Amino acid sequence: MKYEGNCKTPEAPYYAVIFSSQRTASDRGYGKMTDKMLELASQQKGFLGVESAQDEELGITVSYWDSLESIKAWKENSSHRVAQEKGNSEWFKNFSLRVCKVERHCFFEM
Amino acid sequence: MKYEGNCKTPEAPYYAVIFSSQRTASDRGYGKMTDKMLELASQQKGFLGVESAQDEELGITVSYWDSLESIKAWKENSSHRVAQEKGNSEWFKNFSLRVCKVERHCFFEM
Repeated sequence: MKYEGNCKTPEAPYYAVIFSSQRTASDRGYGKMTDKMLELASQQKGFLGVESAQDEELGITVSYWDSLESIKAWKENSSHRVAQEKGNSEWFKNFSLRVCKVERHCFFEM
Repeated sequence: MKYEGNCKTPEAPYYAVIFSSQRTASDRGYGKMTDKMLELASQQKGFLGVESAQDEELGITVSYWDSLESIKAWKENSSHRVAQEKGNSEWFKNFSLRVCKVERHCFFEM
């Protein structure tokens, strides 16, 4: 499964979760866990797509959802919770989670 | 000026512009223009911060704003428009622009 690239979400409004994180030097299992989390997300009801970019300083992963209820269900997914707990203690210096309502969206293809 | 790292925005609600792009192989001036755009953004009224991550596949830049009016003013900023026009023709395979209202925000520092 590939998550790279812009994802083509439906007409706004819908929801976005912006997850931005500064990692520690330790990367034990991080990439694998991110893949697992995204795979789980993609199986959730209401999942619309995901975009992710990582560089040395920061990682940003934006997942898109049809409703706040779907985001809540994903949050309560137990495997996702495991990743959150591991994330807290091992992989991140800090991270931000923002839940947003997408009000407008334009997609341009060259 | 450094834009890396998580930025500490105020209490929600506020606004986010998610810009995600797939670049072409050509990178003529892209990095420089991004820096210039972000520097201009940071001088705009209502700018709250920015987070940016780039890898080979995708770049994601999220800028944060106090209101839709501030985003509109930024959009109308002429230098920013120049970058948009250049972006269309030279640097990107495709890009998405999403304007969002941030409804909830949690920041975790380890």
